[in-house]
Amino acid sequence: MYTFFYFKNSCSLASHITLEQSGAEYRAVAVDFMVNEQRGEEYLALNPKGRVPLLLTEQGALTENPAILTYLAQQFPDAKLAPIDNPFKLAQVQSFNAYLSSTVHVAHAHGVRGSRWTDDAAAIASMKEKMPDNVADCFQLIESTLFTGPWVMGQDYTICDNYLFTIAQWLEGDHVDPARFPKIAEHRARMRELPAVKVVLQANQ
Amino acid sequence: MYTFFYFKNSCSLASHITLEQSGAEYRAVAVDFMVNEQRGEEYLALNPKGRVPLLLTEQGALTENPAILTYLAQQFPDAKLAPIDNPFKLAQVQSFNAYLSSTVHVAHAHGVRGSRWTDDAAAIASMKEKMPDNVADCFQLIESTLFTGPWVMGQDYTICDNYLFTIAQWLEGDHVDPARFPKIAEHRARMRELPAVKVVLQANQ
Repeated sequence: MYTFFYFKNSCSLASHITLEQSGAEYRAVAVDFMVNEQRGEEYLALNPKGRVPLLLTEQGALTENPAILTYLAQQFPDAKLAPIDNPFKLAQVQSFNAYLSSTVHVAHAHGVRGSRWTDDAAAIASMKEKMPDNVADCFQLIESTLFTGPWVMGQDYTICDNYLFTIAQWLEGDHVDPARFPKIAEHRARMRELPAVKVVLQANQ
Repeated sequence: MYTFFYFKNSCSLASHITLEQSGAEYRAVAVDFMVNEQRGEEYLALNPKGRVPLLLTEQGALTENPAILTYLAQQFPDAKLAPIDNPFKLAQVQSFNAYLSSTVHVAHAHGVRGSRWTDDAAAIASMKEKMPDNVADCFQLIESTLFTGPWVMGQDYTICDNYLFTIAQWLEGDHVDPARFPKIAEHRARMRELPAVKVVLQANQ
């Protein structure tokens, strides 16, 4: 039995969907960023990073989407969520997830969390201004190069699909038109119809 | 036989050291960021991201440190570079590496590559000003919480040690005094004495 901490429609959605698909028993606990609960003493005792996602397992706590996603794929092999027996293919999965976490999510964050990197209001505004172009550049690279189709990694559904879907949900909010990326837009629409995704999106309302 | 593309003393050092320790046969090719070689047609054909590290394998290209590190640990199990048979422990390794790649490296990058996120010179300067505090906060979290000792993950040496060492090399350049983090400073000194690290540091001169 896992306990999973998430914030609605944040990047934790990727791990949340994966948990639901894995067949694991879990309890999902919403952390309220609106009242800065992630910076409260109680939450920091569980996760000193003050971020989501956080997965409490019987062996200890895990943070960071790329780690949690691969962990769940390995723990629940019957769910077939990653090519866990093929180191090269698994590395491709991890490379894609690393790109989302260290470049795409970071590009997006400059529109909403600029104060992480500067204390100057004008600088925050200038980062917000450039953000849509940076996010669009990332999605252009995914659309033209990294996305194989019909799923991210080709014929087989993987954890990459959950993570891409999560970040693609933010496009309109980032002032980037999803229609510029037809493959990703179609993928996003298809993802929304999956039963596990529907269940988790409902929990994120 | 692998071909490995790196830029001197960039984050590619983590994969470079790991390659050397794995026992793999490889040819290392320096990419000259000083003349923007990473943005040239030839390099972009190999890696459309225009970044390092890049590992060319017989099965295809791999990018992103967290992916390459785990791949090498899996391909060369005799080198014992990660707890590849224990999904939870491997997830802890991957969580640490994800934190370095998506938070610590990103904090550092605001001091040297601010133009990624804004076109405004004053904003770049203000990001540069805050960068040392952000980098120090990350290292404080590692020192107080994530670093187990004597190695990052405890008794066993892992790929996390190579990645932490790589980023800890940047502390002085980031105007952060390593003496503030005694465990990390001692780890860095110990790492520098490892034969494989010496060989790779030499190649990065």
